[in-house]
Amino acid sequence: GALAQSSVTLFGVVDAAVTYTRGSGDGSAHKTQLTNSGNMFSRLGFRGTEDLGGGYSANFWMEMGLQNDSGTGFPSNSNNQASGNGPAGVLSFNRRSTVSLAGPFGEVRLGRDYVPAFWNTAIFDPFGTGGGIGANQIYFSGLGGLVAPTGTRASNSIGYFLPANLGGFYGQVMYAMGENDSNALLPGTRVPSKHDGEHTGARFGYQSGGLHVAIATGRTRYASGDLRVTNLGAAYSFGPSLMNLKLTSELYKESKGSTDAKGVLVGFQLPIGPGEIKASYARYKLEPANAVREPTSSKLAIGYVHNLSRRSALYGTLARISNRNGAAQALAGAITMPGRSSSGIELGMRHMF
Amino acid sequence: GALAQSSVTLFGVVDAAVTYTRGSGDGSAHKTQLTNSGNMFSRLGFRGTEDLGGGYSANFWMEMGLQNDSGTGFPSNSNNQASGNGPAGVLSFNRRSTVSLAGPFGEVRLGRDYVPAFWNTAIFDPFGTGGGIGANQIYFSGLGGLVAPTGTRASNSIGYFLPANLGGFYGQVMYAMGENDSNALLPGTRVPSKHDGEHTGARFGYQSGGLHVAIATGRTRYASGDLRVTNLGAAYSFGPSLMNLKLTSELYKESKGSTDAKGVLVGFQLPIGPGEIKASYARYKLEPANAVREPTSSKLAIGYVHNLSRRSALYGTLARISNRNGAAQALAGAITMPGRSSSGIELGMRHMF
Amino acid sequence: GALAQSSVTLFGVVDAAVTYTRGSGDGSAHKTQLTNSGNMFSRLGFRGTEDLGGGYSANFWMEMGLQNDSGTGFPSNSNNQASGNGPAGVLSFNRRSTVSLAGPFGEVRLGRDYVPAFWNTAIFDPFGTGGGIGANQIYFSGLGGLVAPTGTRASNSIGYFLPANLGGFYGQVMYAMGENDSNALLPGTRVPSKHDGEHTGARFGYQSGGLHVAIATGRTRYASGDLRVTNLGAAYSFGPSLMNLKLTSELYKESKGSTDAKGVLVGFQLPIGPGEIKASYARYKLEPANAVREPTSSKLAIGYVHNLSRRSALYGTLARISNRNGAAQALAGAITMPGRSSSGIELGMRHMF
Repeated sequence: GALAQSSVTLFGVVDAAVTYTRGSGDGSAHKTQLTNSGNMFSRLGFRGTEDLGGGYSANFWMEMGLQNDSGTGFPSNSNNQASGNGPAGVLSFNRRSTVSLAGPFGEVRLGRDYVPAFWNTAIFDPFGTGGGIGANQIYFSGLGGLVAPTGTRASNSIGYFLPANLGGFYGQVMYAMGENDSNALLPGTRVPSKHDGEHTGARFGYQSGGLHVAIATGRTRYASGDLRVTNLGAAYSFGPSLMNLKLTSELYKESKGSTDAKGVLVGFQLPIGPGEIKASYARYKLEPANAVREPTSSKLAIGYVHNLSRRSALYGTLARISNRNGAAQALAGAITMPGRSSSGIELGMRHMF
Repeated sequence: GALAQSSVTLFGVVDAAVTYTRGSGDGSAHKTQLTNSGNMFSRLGFRGTEDLGGGYSANFWMEMGLQNDSGTGFPSNSNNQASGNGPAGVLSFNRRSTVSLAGPFGEVRLGRDYVPAFWNTAIFDPFGTGGGIGANQIYFSGLGGLVAPTGTRASNSIGYFLPANLGGFYGQVMYAMGENDSNALLPGTRVPSKHDGEHTGARFGYQSGGLHVAIATGRTRYASGDLRVTNLGAAYSFGPSLMNLKLTSELYKESKGSTDAKGVLVGFQLPIGPGEIKASYARYKLEPANAVREPTSSKLAIGYVHNLSRRSALYGTLARISNRNGAAQALAGAITMPGRSSSGIELGMRHMF
Repeated sequence: GALAQSSVTLFGVVDAAVTYTRGSGDGSAHKTQLTNSGNMFSRLGFRGTEDLGGGYSANFWMEMGLQNDSGTGFPSNSNNQASGNGPAGVLSFNRRSTVSLAGPFGEVRLGRDYVPAFWNTAIFDPFGTGGGIGANQIYFSGLGGLVAPTGTRASNSIGYFLPANLGGFYGQVMYAMGENDSNALLPGTRVPSKHDGEHTGARFGYQSGGLHVAIATGRTRYASGDLRVTNLGAAYSFGPSLMNLKLTSELYKESKGSTDAKGVLVGFQLPIGPGEIKASYARYKLEPANAVREPTSSKLAIGYVHNLSRRSALYGTLARISNRNGAAQALAGAITMPGRSSSGIELGMRHMF
């Protein structure tokens, strides 16, 4: 980020790619698109820190997601429930909208922020959770992830972060409110829904030398069935002797009502001159109650990022999703038939400011 | 505000609080929320002044309201009528959107701006008209105020402001257009509605030493019944001998069609070290035509603001609304029964940039 | 623009005018409005350039349109088809949203950008294509122009621009995608609509001394009938001996399905001290298949712009539209009857930052 002033920093990312994706089977479809966020999520933000003395600071962070292929944005969600979704495509500070007080005690943050259990999925996948075809398949096909109102972020949250100086150990907890009336009922029933959209989550990690491990969990209450997510990420960066190779992995477990699901991911990042080669393999299995055949999909992605500078890069990605047992996951833009595969390629440019 | 450049200043407020409110009676409801704007209204703005020489300047001011608890905003209104409301929660420059020419003659402003009669309600209430539970009850429960399209601001306005050097005397007038077709009719009737949404208003005040008084009035034309608001504010700041105590008051009178209403407010602000104690009492009475029992509600609010710096503060507020004669006003988030009370508490943080 | 930093420039225009327009005939209507963009289109933008060395640069440009009379904005369009329009009045980066790589080879741009054939209409009309009453009548009443999703800009585009150092010769080509499923059908038919919203366009020009000529063409595919636009602009700026008079002209031809249309425009700009007088005459004729009487409208506009500085100006415009053969074009805000005229006046202020 740049344009740092005494009180506000304007920052962002604009990332666009030409993407071709296809499915297979009768009724499948392919598409060529201009997509956004293939390497990093496109965004525009305003943030600032005021030094209050004594190690204390006041902070704010307002950040909107951009669909820069069409100049639109993303709605936010006001109550962590489906009813709180805004109109598609509008601009909002959906990515983060917080004010916080930080000090020797850590940081207390108020507003819309990432749920703790999101971070492992984003950080321990070399492709992250952006809009690219290589991005985390667990995130895109899961019960939480991209789909649930609290899969990525929660509104109305109070977060606490441990201070930074704990010898590599870090952690955070979050409580977010659904803000329903105390006498709210699930429509057409007498089931109380007061707690719908209430999220509690925590994440703890350790990073030192080349090692990074973190565990996180979260629960969002819904009268129709809670969403629970737990995941564990681990990465190791080898030193110069192994060309600074970094291996990453994640174990993922979630449930929504009586449906369970499991995911696993392994990946690597390998710096090559001014660029980086990266690859990931992810597998996600739905386990509906009493189901004999468990829909399973897996994604293999490989990419190269060519850095033009610290802020700008060109990139290319190849990805393929395989489905089994009725799963029909496809790369964004494509339609594939149950049990069939989907593959794609993207070539793009990312610029940070 | 900061980030002042030669041609543009980026400024804003991010204010969030944890708020608990409750009502009373069968069917009442309580709620705990993360709210915004308890101390100052959250906002993000861009403004600038160009010196044209000879005492003249060109100016612009674009300012959007923020619901930073969820990263959303507020729609604007395009025609000063209910039909011109935008979709809920979208970002817009709803707070102010003006270009102006200023000079020795004063200032002529074009665009969306505050109606003159709004200012007394905001300025002479120690809690203002923000989103906090202490905020002006007349504003929230009135016929104009928060409810009417022109209760706070008007679009399509031409404003004139007196120059600043009149020995403490100041003033402004506004004319705003509803922009209806000249042959428009009230739906289903032959009643001309050409003038619907047309607003005229004026405000004049005097501020000198510790004294500040101002009177304002405004009328918005609607074929279904005009909205008229008149108010008078007065404040006196005692000097150091009385601990810089400031007393404030407002008298308020409004009507919509054949319904009249009256309001009154008294309050004080008392600096205490790095903080300030403040309190207000407001009473608002609806006077529908021919009604025997006039719905009346009153609010008592007391708060403390602890300044961490000139830009950042922590604050807490207690408030209670009492209702009589069928009124059922409740603090935001709560539901209370007619004639019953509503009370609440909020604890928050405000940061300006 | 100003607020230039190492990585981002914040820029914009706020332009507002008081505008009166009227039609004629039974059922016609007049209106007085506060309008925006009478002299230049109101906007707020963020852009930046990063020098990559060797003549290469990475660039981004995010620019939103403003309706500053009410603090609202303009939706974008996500797929270059009517189905991709956003909600009216919301803010979006509808004007431009691009990331690009530039170098000795020229520039490759990705995102939402102006279609090549738009530029001649904007550049060779002294009043441009803004919101003023003098603005290009072909643009406002045409089949493309303001009406079609790709009349001004296209989303999902890949653009290539020739380098700047070609001795006055310049050029650009664009390909933009509709991003439909490969098996998409026109609703209720078996007609493939896969290519709907696909735009291809090109523009080439030459500017040297006082001479400026450019030709452009564009085609947007729709299963219901393609939109094709071709235009040619020419201008000549006489030197000081003729008071720097500039003459401008445009020839315009378009078709949508089986409806053809033709337009022509001539105009001039004449600097007078700190100001400029300008005038234009435009004529537009619809040629529906088999129609005997071809609806024709023409606009005459004359204006004066008084520059207060390089960034700020006051302006006034008079305009009149004449209709024949059933055409009923009116200046914005007015309603006129078929074959009748519409006239108007606007007085405004424009400020750039």
